[in-house]
Amino acid sequence: MSSPFAPRIEAALARAVALGQGRGAEMPAPARLAAALDHAVNPGGARIRPTLCLAVALACGDDDPALADAAAAALELIHCASLVHDDLPCFDDADIRRGKPTVHRAFSEPLAVLTGDALILLAFDVLARAGQRNPLRALTLSGILARCSGMPGGICAGQGWESEPRIDLRAYHRAKTGALFVAATRMGAVAAGHDPEAWDELGARIGEAFQVADDLRDVLCDAAALGKPVGQDAAHARPSAVAEMGVQGAIRHLSAILSGAIASIPKCPGEAGLAALVRAYAERMTPLAPGSAPDPAAAGAFAAGG
Amino acid sequence: MSSPFAPRIEAALARAVALGQGRGAEMPAPARLAAALDHAVNPGGARIRPTLCLAVALACGDDDPALADAAAAALELIHCASLVHDDLPCFDDADIRRGKPTVHRAFSEPLAVLTGDALILLAFDVLARAGQRNPLRALTLSGILARCSGMPGGICAGQGWESEPRIDLRAYHRAKTGALFVAATRMGAVAAGHDPEAWDELGARIGEAFQVADDLRDVLCDAAALGKPVGQDAAHARPSAVAEMGVQGAIRHLSAILSGAIASIPKCPGEAGLAALVRAYAERMTPLAPGSAPDPAAAGAFAAGG
Repeated sequence: MSSPFAPRIEAALARAVALGQGRGAEMPAPARLAAALDHAVNPGGARIRPTLCLAVALACGDDDPALADAAAAALELIHCASLVHDDLPCFDDADIRRGKPTVHRAFSEPLAVLTGDALILLAFDVLARAGQRNPLRALTLSGILARCSGMPGGICAGQGWESEPRIDLRAYHRAKTGALFVAATRMGAVAAGHDPEAWDELGARIGEAFQVADDLRDVLCDAAALGKPVGQDAAHARPSAVAEMGVQGAIRHLSAILSGAIASIPKCPGEAGLAALVRAYAERMTPLAPGSAPDPAAAGAFAAGG
Repeated sequence: MSSPFAPRIEAALARAVALGQGRGAEMPAPARLAAALDHAVNPGGARIRPTLCLAVALACGDDDPALADAAAAALELIHCASLVHDDLPCFDDADIRRGKPTVHRAFSEPLAVLTGDALILLAFDVLARAGQRNPLRALTLSGILARCSGMPGGICAGQGWESEPRIDLRAYHRAKTGALFVAATRMGAVAAGHDPEAWDELGARIGEAFQVADDLRDVLCDAAALGKPVGQDAAHARPSAVAEMGVQGAIRHLSAILSGAIASIPKCPGEAGLAALVRAYAERMTPLAPGSAPDPAAAGAFAAGG
């Protein structure tokens, strides 16, 4: 799905990748790892987290666009890092991601581990560089990103739950998927000088919707439309909304969550525009009326890991 | 080697690990990953990077000790993360680190990947939390740490060189070992409000000395004294100062580097104290007079990955 923010996001990511690759730097960088950074980031999926971040920043006035761009890029870098590590042989052992070989298949397993690490670090480098005008905002962004990605409640924690004998489902979903969406709305607000807390509910609800939509796609799509293997939740015995409430139940649940997301948008200058964007995403995310046949093309709009 | 900074460093690391484990947090954290964080950080090695950081901060006046402590802890967290990932089966495939099982042996390979990721992220969380009084300093610390750890010139880049068909040896050593020592001196200065550039040479020289000392230990020590396997450089055909200039040549080189390190210390209030500390480290790092027999006990003072 092409959003009005796509040019800003792609430009910010291109600058970040160039920085990580050391183009123009004094010392040479290892060429294969440099190539792997680009492979992991481009071409992207739906870039939904940076889009959400910039949409919130714009709704809040976007008075430091360079910082908002850095926040958006940092979010996507962390997301890409999590996909690269998630695809490793010791996790999902995936061969295909976004329709092309995963990083460990295209390069090697050591380079895939390093690519994930380097993308995480690059995210914080990007924030530090963009924060000279508003260092407190940038530092706050850095803290939000670290907490929503790491332990005890971020993406790493979510992945960590999969190694536990008993999973706390609420903590698992909130950490694995929800946290980075909450980071996206919070970071958009902070980049524009607004208070982050008011934006938690929007991020949490979109994250929850995204998880349910992902569970549905894993059951309903074929691998070609999705750009990655299907049936992974069942194959890895992972908890899933579909396993819990069935396909129709999950679709109804998704609708309810997205309505709640729109209702939760705080009063702000760009409230109407943001609601319209979330509504457009909601329509793409809910392609299946209960009882209808799956529509892989529409579902594919959110394919390839977002 | 116990330094006067050990209590500050261990307390800062204990706070960081507790934060990552989510003690007292609202949502539960996955218990095995939480345990793995502690396993990776404690008990530590020589903690040489945080010691160097605090020594420089003190030499510069140490006017925000909480921020200096955070910088020291962040450095060590990144160092521990790099060891955990470096030990993975796809890199060194090491069973033992600091005299106990490596994280992937004690827990699992997925948990070792996640532990490294979580420790990297925790480092930035710690800096963000400690920077409320001096946000610009904290943001600068965050940027230095990211650059010295990631691509194109940090630890990840150093590791990445090992996947290249032809290694640029200068870039390799500077990135793999030197960068985090330069980060240590720079971060100590910045935490205390001083300019970082003047401290680059001290960090670079100590890093170079450390690499040469490490190469010597890999050849001269036995595994029991070192707490990890020996002969790894030869086994993995890695570049090494010993391979390049022989044992005696490497020892002479190490001495020369350490003298240069002491001479490079900038004028500052705590110059004499810092020189004494570097001299003490130098004596521990250079246990072997040319022609003498190896002294595993003395060399072991810097064992276990520092």
